[in-house]
Amino acid sequence: MMRDIVQTLGSLIDRQSVSFISSVDESGFPNTRAMLAPIRREGIKTFYWHTNNASAKIKQYKNNPKACIYFCDKRFFRGVMLKGTMQILEDHEIKKEFWNDGFDAYYKGGMDGGDFTLIKFTAQNGRYYTNFHSEDFNIQ
Amino acid sequence: MMRDIVQTLGSLIDRQSVSFISSVDESGFPNTRAMLAPIRREGIKTFYWHTNNASAKIKQYKNNPKACIYFCDKRFFRGVMLKGTMQILEDHEIKKEFWNDGFDAYYKGGMDGGDFTLIKFTAQNGRYYTNFHSEDFNIQ
Repeated sequence: MMRDIVQTLGSLIDRQSVSFISSVDESGFPNTRAMLAPIRREGIKTFYWHTNNASAKIKQYKNNPKACIYFCDKRFFRGVMLKGTMQILEDHEIKKEFWNDGFDAYYKGGMDGGDFTLIKFTAQNGRYYTNFHSEDFNIQ
Repeated sequence: MMRDIVQTLGSLIDRQSVSFISSVDESGFPNTRAMLAPIRREGIKTFYWHTNNASAKIKQYKNNPKACIYFCDKRFFRGVMLKGTMQILEDHEIKKEFWNDGFDAYYKGGMDGGDFTLIKFTAQNGRYYTNFHSEDFNIQ
């Protein structure tokens, strides 16, 4: 087992500019898309992104919160998958905490215009891929 | 709609050294992992990889063939997701077609040792992500 899993994986994650998030759609197919890096990470337990409210993933996660996220360290062919649930955050106070005025360019109507949406992933367990081997772990 | 979808996406796909393949596990969670580029691609309809028979994805696809694959062009923040089904190819003749002796290093017992496994993805439809927009398409 990795000596310090949170540090090892946290540092792998922080070096990636892209993250991959997956959902299960209404027909039972997995759906994966690239996102920018999460805007906040708390250990390897919770991750936040902002996105457009009309995106397909919002509908999919509302219908089925089961999710996985994946970070790929291509250079060393290492990767980590975390499995858990994705939550849509609607609360005004939380949105305020994450909002910055530069987002106006991306979200019609600004912070409260209905387009700006926060999603929060909470991990339950994961799998670390390194050197063509993999290792499962739980997350407290 | 893209003028020539097969050419546009085929060329995006061929430039990536890594591909992401997703399954749905026995608990209904999406599972995603990085793979090397497919060893064969036929248009944007079928894709082949080789992998170890004991890998979690083999078990998952046997149980539930619903799959998606994703290719990310990080440089231009474009990506394509293809949805369809993943099939495990057991046929000796097909394996022979794909086998090369360099694989001995990765697969215990060689081509027929039981470890070397081919998987074939067949796409039904997809989604192209570019410039923070996305577009769905069907695949004939």
